[in-house]
Formats: sequence, structure tokens, C-alpha cells
Amino acid sequence: MNPIGVFDSGVGGLTVLAALRHVMPDEDFIYLGDTARLPYGTKSCDTVVRYSLQCADALRRFGIRCLVVACNTASASALDALRVRHPAIPVIGVIEPGAQAAVAASASQHIAVIGTEGTIAGGAYQAAIRRLNPLARVIAAPCSLFVALAEEGWTTGPVAEAVARRYLDPMFASGGGEVPDTLLLGCTHFPALAASIGLAVPPRVRVVDSAGTTAAWVARQMGAGAGSGERLHDGRRGSVRWLATDGAVRFARAGSLFLGETLRAGDIELIDL
Amino acid sequence: MNPIGVFDSGVGGLTVLAALRHVMPDEDFIYLGDTARLPYGTKSCDTVVRYSLQCADALRRFGIRCLVVACNTASASALDALRVRHPAIPVIGVIEPGAQAAVAASASQHIAVIGTEGTIAGGAYQAAIRRLNPLARVIAAPCSLFVALAEEGWTTGPVAEAVARRYLDPMFASGGGEVPDTLLLGCTHFPALAASIGLAVPPRVRVVDSAGTTAAWVARQMGAGAGSGERLHDGRRGSVRWLATDGAVRFARAGSLFLGETLRAGDIELIDL
Repeated sequence: MNPIGVFDSGVGGLTVLAALRHVMPDEDFIYLGDTARLPYGTKSCDTVVRYSLQCADALRRFGIRCLVVACNTASASALDALRVRHPAIPVIGVIEPGAQAAVAASASQHIAVIGTEGTIAGGAYQAAIRRLNPLARVIAAPCSLFVALAEEGWTTGPVAEAVARRYLDPMFASGGGEVPDTLLLGCTHFPALAASIGLAVPPRVRVVDSAGTTAAWVARQMGAGAGSGERLHDGRRGSVRWLATDGAVRFARAGSLFLGETLRAGDIELIDL
Repeated sequence: MNPIGVFDSGVGGLTVLAALRHVMPDEDFIYLGDTARLPYGTKSCDTVVRYSLQCADALRRFGIRCLVVACNTASASALDALRVRHPAIPVIGVIEPGAQAAVAASASQHIAVIGTEGTIAGGAYQAAIRRLNPLARVIAAPCSLFVALAEEGWTTGPVAEAVARRYLDPMFASGGGEVPDTLLLGCTHFPALAASIGLAVPPRVRVVDSAGTTAAWVARQMGAGAGSGERLHDGRRGSVRWLATDGAVRFARAGSLFLGETLRAGDIELIDL
């Protein structure tokens, strides 16, 4: 069976890959991190679309049968363009699944969304949540520094907590009114900071991300996955082929954190887009 | 007279451009920020060389008569390659001038250097200081988050101070011995954080950067500059042409901070490299 292709601007998308492998353990995957040009989150929409199309073209040359856009910024900006260019395969982003996770988690349907500057400015999460529930109240804010903190490995401690409070305090300051009961992490880097983010929001707030729901969407689309009953798991552990556009050593080091298992620099193939 | 070309990975190099315009007010400049692919500081040496050559080729097409590499990472990695490719014009980086500023400022010749991961790992500043004074003691550390803080505009306040202390405390902890008396800011973004950095180092430490000394080097090379006596200032204020590879609005907003005057997005031409 041909592999499932996954791309991200860097290593953050490995949280999505880990969830995909969890629900589809016998599938083969090919992961591309566009590390030479990360981050996407501060770039213009046109540039993100251009880079995303190049990533998808590269993965198509490896014969993928489904494309997962693990990058929130690329999902927010480039999904339509990717579907037009690749009509023969399913193209699945993380925005709709993330919005679904938030709507499912929220009792009050008052939802806070954080992401990169590009994701939040584009309004894709806000629109996706309102499509699922037109009565939902959504507030959104960019939290650009979370990406740099995660890349630096400073995910806990006083700096991470101070940054989290500075971004999140204004979103959860009640001012006498009701505050959101759910916080959607709209960037694949942000789950690495979940502990510090959790300390900065009121205790009853549920913190959700796109990884699990995206993996479930892909499994449904592929007719596979744990519990689907449509395919028997043959006990074989699927393979992953690793591609990056720069810095195998850095990719392996930072990527191991997001993937939750050790990556070796020697296993990462560098490609030029 | 043909313009002087200046390039950087983004807007940080505008601190160097501001210094250049200060000493050579009647010169015309053309500034290129490779904003589509910033930051350079976390990329591999090979990729930084490739991108730097593309920036220089683009500026040469505008007929520049001198190339200033305002990016520390590019100066550290690509200066030789740039000089080989462009033997007909002077190519001036910020490493040698920065090292000269530090050696001139330090009484004890015990110098601390901070920069991006790429700049520090390459060891160019450490080598340049030792070339000027083989007896100098140099310690160096990467401070990657300073770039993100400067780009976010969080240059003062509790977060910037906490980050500065976390990076700098280990460099200036005496442990019973003598500590450096000079701190060299080896990244064009870092002067924006000078106030927070100043609070994190012992009071008698001198904080220096490359901008002023680089501008003086360029002025000497061009036979121009205030006080050189070789050219009369005709009272005309030289022009600047602004080029970027992405995001004119963001370039103008962040760039105004570094340049110290207001940039308008409409004045920035987008080019593709």
C-alpha cells in the first residue's frame, strides 16, 4: 500500500504524525519538514501557499495516496490550493478537526483559540468553529513566541510560564463576565507547552489540540484505524520515511521531543524544494 | 554614484543600515531583507551560504558598488563564498568590525559573545577576537530566543528580563573567578534588547555591537564618511531602496523599530530569489 504523506514547516507536525501512527499502526508514512524555510506562521499567505504546493509536489513524487497538512498555518492558507492541484488524493488539514475537538469539549460554546500570527489573522479556526456551531462565541489571539520557546526546549519553568500568562491573561480575564471554558491550541508546536499553558488558565478550562481528531479523520478517510473493524491489524509496524529541507541534526534533536521517541540524524534525508 | 547594497535575513540589519546612513548621509543604499526565509540563525551553514549568494546576486543586478553583509549568521558562514563570487566589489561583513569593537572596549580582554545558534557554533567571532588579540579570553553562548522577542516587540519587561537572566547568568557567574568585562552582541536583533540585557549583566560590563564599527569600516573602504575630509557633503540626503522577499506590512512594522524611523509598507518592493 502506498504511504500517507504528512508535511509541516518543521518538527511540530510530528505531534500529528505520532497520533496518526497511534490509530493506524500498520500504515507507512512519509513525513516532510520544510525546515529550511520555517517558520510559516509569520509569512504572508501567498508565500505559505507557494511553499505548501512545493511540499505537496515533492511528496506526490513518492507516490503518496493521501496528504495530511500537519501545519496549522498551511492548513489555514493553502488547503483549497492543494485540493485544486491534487484532486486525485484526499487532502486533510488540521483546522476542521481542531475546531471539532474544541466544539466537542466546550460546555458553554465559549472558545478561545491561539495560534501563529498567520493562522489567527486568516480567521480559519474562528470560521470553522462557527460553521460547526453558529452560536459559538470565539476569541482568538496570536502567540508567536510559543514556537520559539518550544524550539528552544524551554517548555516549562519561569520563562515559559511568564510568556503563557502574558498571552493568556487577557483572554481569560473575566472583567465581571463569563470566560471561555475551552482553549484550542491552533499550532502543532503548542502541545509541547501544555504544562505551562495549563498553569496560566483557570483550572476548569479544557485545553485541546488538533492531533487526535485529525488522526481520527484520516483513519476514517482511509477506512482503517483501530476500532474501525474494516481492516485486521496484521501485527506489522508501519514504516516512516523522514525528509527535511535543512538541518538533519537539529531536526532529529527537536523532533524527538515532539514525536516522543528518538530520531537519528542519519535517518533523515535532506531534499531541496 | 552606484548604491551600496546591504542584506540581512530580515529587519535586524536595519541597525547596521542606520549606522551606515549616519556616517555616510549622502550615499544611496539598497537594502534587501530575506524575510521569506528568515531566520538564518538556526539553519545549516550550507543553506545560509546558498541563500546569501542569492541575496548578493539579486543586489548585484541593481548595480551595487559595495556589499555589506549585515546579518551576523551570513557574515560568519558565507563571507568567503561571497568574495569568491563577487571579486569586483568590496564585500564587508559584521564579524571583524564587531570583534574590533569588543577588543577596543575591554580592559581585561575577557570577552563574552552572544549570537544565534549558527553564529556561535561556527566560532567566527571567537576566532576573529583571537586574531586581534591571541591572549584574549572568550566565552560564547547562543541566545536564540532574543530574536523572537525582538520580532515580537517584547524588548523590555519581565519576560525579556527573565530570558536575558537565564542566558546571561551562567556567563557572568563568577564562581570565585573573574568575569568578562565586555559583552559583544553578535546578532543584529540584540541591540533592540539592550535595556533588558543591561539589567542582566553586572553594572560595570560594557555592552557593544557591530553596527557602528561596521559603518566606519565601510566608510573607510569607500573613502567617504563624516570626518574623512575626502568628500564634501553636498547637503543631499541619500536615498534608500527597500527590497524584501515577503511580508511588506510586517517588514515595515518591525523594521521601523530597528531603523528608528517610520517605514511605509508601500515603499517596500517584494522580490523573489
